[in-house]
Amino acid sequence: MVGAHPKVMERLIETNALHTVGYGRDQFCKDARDIILNACGIENGEVYFLEGGTQANAVVIDRLLDHNDGVIAADTAHINVHEAGAIESNGHKVLALPNHDGKLKADEIRKYLEDFYNDATNHYMVRPGMVYISFPTELGTIYTKKELEDISEVCKEYNLPLYADGARLAYGLAAEGVDVTIKDIAGICDLFYIGGTKCGTLFGEAVVTRRPELLPRFVSVIKLHGATLAKGRLLGVQFATLFTDGLYEEIGKHAVKMALKLKEGFKKKGYKLYMNSPTNQQFFILPNEKIDSLKEVASFELWGPRGEKETPVRFVTDWSTDEKDVDSLIEKL
Amino acid sequence: MVGAHPKVMERLIETNALHTVGYGRDQFCKDARDIILNACGIENGEVYFLEGGTQANAVVIDRLLDHNDGVIAADTAHINVHEAGAIESNGHKVLALPNHDGKLKADEIRKYLEDFYNDATNHYMVRPGMVYISFPTELGTIYTKKELEDISEVCKEYNLPLYADGARLAYGLAAEGVDVTIKDIAGICDLFYIGGTKCGTLFGEAVVTRRPELLPRFVSVIKLHGATLAKGRLLGVQFATLFTDGLYEEIGKHAVKMALKLKEGFKKKGYKLYMNSPTNQQFFILPNEKIDSLKEVASFELWGPRGEKETPVRFVTDWSTDEKDVDSLIEKL
Amino acid sequence: MVGAHPKVMERLIETNALHTVGYGRDQFCKDARDIILNACGIENGEVYFLEGGTQANAVVIDRLLDHNDGVIAADTAHINVHEAGAIESNGHKVLALPNHDGKLKADEIRKYLEDFYNDATNHYMVRPGMVYISFPTELGTIYTKKELEDISEVCKEYNLPLYADGARLAYGLAAEGVDVTIKDIAGICDLFYIGGTKCGTLFGEAVVTRRPELLPRFVSVIKLHGATLAKGRLLGVQFATLFTDGLYEEIGKHAVKMALKLKEGFKKKGYKLYMNSPTNQQFFILPNEKIDSLKEVASFELWGPRGEKETPVRFVTDWSTDEKDVDSLIEKL
Amino acid sequence: MVGAHPKVMERLIETNALHTVGYGRDQFCKDARDIILNACGIENGEVYFLEGGTQANAVVIDRLLDHNDGVIAADTAHINVHEAGAIESNGHKVLALPNHDGKLKADEIRKYLEDFYNDATNHYMVRPGMVYISFPTELGTIYTKKELEDISEVCKEYNLPLYADGARLAYGLAAEGVDVTIKDIAGICDLFYIGGTKCGTLFGEAVVTRRPELLPRFVSVIKLHGATLAKGRLLGVQFATLFTDGLYEEIGKHAVKMALKLKEGFKKKGYKLYMNSPTNQQFFILPNEKIDSLKEVASFELWGPRGEKETPVRFVTDWSTDEKDVDSLIEKL
Repeated sequence: MVGAHPKVMERLIETNALHTVGYGRDQFCKDARDIILNACGIENGEVYFLEGGTQANAVVIDRLLDHNDGVIAADTAHINVHEAGAIESNGHKVLALPNHDGKLKADEIRKYLEDFYNDATNHYMVRPGMVYISFPTELGTIYTKKELEDISEVCKEYNLPLYADGARLAYGLAAEGVDVTIKDIAGICDLFYIGGTKCGTLFGEAVVTRRPELLPRFVSVIKLHGATLAKGRLLGVQFATLFTDGLYEEIGKHAVKMALKLKEGFKKKGYKLYMNSPTNQQFFILPNEKIDSLKEVASFELWGPRGEKETPVRFVTDWSTDEKDVDSLIEKL
Repeated sequence: MVGAHPKVMERLIETNALHTVGYGRDQFCKDARDIILNACGIENGEVYFLEGGTQANAVVIDRLLDHNDGVIAADTAHINVHEAGAIESNGHKVLALPNHDGKLKADEIRKYLEDFYNDATNHYMVRPGMVYISFPTELGTIYTKKELEDISEVCKEYNLPLYADGARLAYGLAAEGVDVTIKDIAGICDLFYIGGTKCGTLFGEAVVTRRPELLPRFVSVIKLHGATLAKGRLLGVQFATLFTDGLYEEIGKHAVKMALKLKEGFKKKGYKLYMNSPTNQQFFILPNEKIDSLKEVASFELWGPRGEKETPVRFVTDWSTDEKDVDSLIEKL
Repeated sequence: MVGAHPKVMERLIETNALHTVGYGRDQFCKDARDIILNACGIENGEVYFLEGGTQANAVVIDRLLDHNDGVIAADTAHINVHEAGAIESNGHKVLALPNHDGKLKADEIRKYLEDFYNDATNHYMVRPGMVYISFPTELGTIYTKKELEDISEVCKEYNLPLYADGARLAYGLAAEGVDVTIKDIAGICDLFYIGGTKCGTLFGEAVVTRRPELLPRFVSVIKLHGATLAKGRLLGVQFATLFTDGLYEEIGKHAVKMALKLKEGFKKKGYKLYMNSPTNQQFFILPNEKIDSLKEVASFELWGPRGEKETPVRFVTDWSTDEKDVDSLIEKL
Repeated sequence: MVGAHPKVMERLIETNALHTVGYGRDQFCKDARDIILNACGIENGEVYFLEGGTQANAVVIDRLLDHNDGVIAADTAHINVHEAGAIESNGHKVLALPNHDGKLKADEIRKYLEDFYNDATNHYMVRPGMVYISFPTELGTIYTKKELEDISEVCKEYNLPLYADGARLAYGLAAEGVDVTIKDIAGICDLFYIGGTKCGTLFGEAVVTRRPELLPRFVSVIKLHGATLAKGRLLGVQFATLFTDGLYEEIGKHAVKMALKLKEGFKKKGYKLYMNSPTNQQFFILPNEKIDSLKEVASFELWGPRGEKETPVRFVTDWSTDEKDVDSLIEKL
């Protein structure tokens, strides 16, 4: 990991000595809000800035769900696997459905809901209260516009908010073959967050909604979760920069280009894909000895426990990935 | 449902006018505790009386688990399906493994734990903190002694308390083909509860442990959960009665005999078993028209949502089931 | 403590062998609900039966409050002192105001609310979300009708539900000098509970509201808290009996008569009142040696920690208190 | 509010492009940890970096307290007033004692604990599980070394961890008349946090303890609270800078000098002190018209709700306060 994109860092330096009010009530946050809503094609929406992805998920989901409601998510969802139980610690069950390359299927959500509402004992079961998807998914894959619309349709039938985790949104919007824009996400989902931490900022995520009534008293709820940033403007400054002069797109495109080059390189050398990802996360299945030797020259992670002979691994590119490093790695495969 | 077994009711009447101290510190509770520990073959253990099964599970599990710990359970477990999210509402994730006729397999628990401890990111995952089983299971099946010992062995390897939900314990201990006694349960599991509500009392469950150090300050934790009974002696009186003169065994045997007769009846008439249960819960797959007509003459439940043509149903017997009613029902099949 | 009032016990015996549906959906519960609503003068209200007072408070308050809402209560309130943190364990702060003989004052509630809404930082403070009173209070005192109306007026101004803990309601309604009826309570408070445990039943409290919309999905929320009684009818049977043929009034009157006789006895012997209570709880300040000698012949509690020379104590009467025992105790003073 | 101290900002720029591992496992964090432990005179301790003060309090307190434990704090404590109920939302009661100029008194803590342990019903009360103090307090005051030692002594008697909120620690350590060093704090308290956000960093607080066993599995607990910073090194870089070449001291001294000058100015003009603070927060009681006119030329807050004629206000200085602005403000008084 590196710090922030140079342009973001530059703005933080430029604005460092200015005095502003705290806790996100400053002009930088207001401007960033307007820029983001405009980019999303939302007229009467709201934007809230938080510090990290797990935090954004925990606070938003806790706010959306009533007592004994749960959140429908793929079993591979970040909230189901890698957030140390943050959702449950706030009292809510993750209702995990089988993933399909990291994605939920509209039909399976509908079936789940039908079964729930047809079960005579459902008042003693956890009521599905919302649907969580990630774009791109934890496996680097993306939903098509049609898939999102289908899920949204089910959600509307059952009056469930649809929420998208966009920790790596920039890379999803720049994915190979993507037919979804940020305006599509903003219009189809009820809420989503725009990832900053993994897409150019020092830290920070922007929760965006076209239905602000879904998040009543959210400023207090954020505080309650210990998630209020005193110098809130830091988030305003950073997000305004990301959404000025096409920086967010640029960041996404570079990383995806590097990732696809890497995928091509692995494929040419005969390695198996664990997942065919069109975004900045690439998953391969490597022999364990290969993993051990590559560890010396590249940075990547095992994806789950080490297998007996081979193990899935994940490589991640971002805006800072240097093409020379990609080329050099491919040579060493 | 009926009230309490006549012998239990009789004791409540006999003791009704006596003055005792409250909150379970009376002599009836002390006596019941001693009788139960003796029946379980436990020398230095402890017994706590609670009012219901969901409550017992919620309070015990909340006490056993540390922050960000979860409880391993079969996906069919009562805590995973029919407790309205009580476990999660206390902050804990149910780590659901596939059930095998309602049961967990020791090997699959071990595999899950190995994978967890081999995953380099496990400090951001929910740590398995205990194992929950039910005896008999929610599908009426029972573990063999060997199966329990195998699960216990895994638990010991990973230092996880093994807890058994005995809501219907009497019927499990009297099951056809059972090779497990209450002493086995008490010795193999670290904690379990003896179901009263479904086995002869007006209400109440007795949490038993041979390792009292697992439940520090449990009296306060019970109160915190709103689970303290002011006239605690009601539970002492009832449980002492259940465990005097073999009443608990008698209750179990009668119900199981009735259930097996019912199963035989359905089988003879050509109906399919949904589950081959040796206990007081019997599951059949019935054509929907049959369900509709039987509803007039018998009390049973759909097991899950109604299917298109046929649906699993559950019949439950207990100590109060009249053999004439069973015979009469079988005739009407 | 004794068991249930003989008439309550009798009905439990009479109905013990009947088969009914479970979980409070039976006819006994429906009848009890209608009888109670009628007694309360409520046309379109709802009644929910729970097992104990701490539980009733915890479940009702958890349902009423939104995230980061707190409950205004006297600092002597049961929820603030003697429920082991049950309210906080569900995430809510008790906003304790100074008590006046156990009571809140309408003016002080208003001042607290004004200050809160005039504080520019109140979005980072706990928002008052409801008001909790007890009738009678934990110190045995009662509100006048005027005092209740004044508190209700403040609550309406600020749109806060007013909830009364009626653990000992029977004794408050029969208090010396009372000008409040159960219909007044039901009409002035938004919700309250009718205490059964301390007023004639084996256990159980009836939560009553003329505004059922305040408790959405309450059946699920009760389950979530582990507070659902499987044989729910036990509560219906008991409460129907309490509210038939004036039994609840009779219970209250007898206990208060005994309590006042006891107070008179202590006063005549020159002992100081700790609180001048018109209900079934009586508080005296006794020299420590007197406490030690009385412990042999009567049942009472220290009220707080033992003082150096003298200590407040509490005597409690109920429907089962025998006048001969009162006389005998007075003689021994 | 401004951004970070120029030296901190400089280091963030210098290190921005470096690649490191994430989540605080990098060398910058390790170095910062060592520098801090050394500054604190702790040999075998631990340091954890979090993003904000409310978060630090919530996570630490949640980790320290067992079920049904509460935290003793002054009624003016940040955790009791201005954290939107964060402590309660994690299930814990704040046991508020009267403040004395923002401070707790050792004797009153001891009395509270004695009363608790002498109360026969204390198993149904919230058990005091730790003591929270702030240094400096929310009212700008500081404890003497003797006062801290006395509180620590009570804590040791009752085996309660003593935790200090050091959101403004730099200004406390530089206070007029202070006799406490950071080593004293570190040695007397079991844990404390060094405030970064208000003392020179962009954001961030460093939780320090000489008893790491008090925070088991803290990395997971932090994640569970959504408080893990992906680019954790940002905190390491900033804190290492604060504790290099005396920057933290320098920051504290400048702010306090400015604050005392301001206090002198107000006093000379005849304004009343609301609190006689020796640190960077200064509290005056101003006529409401004065407040309105000053609002045009200076930045300060009402302290609580606006009074009828006059209102307490708070002025805060920090490392960035320009002496010319102080002088200019004083002239305008």
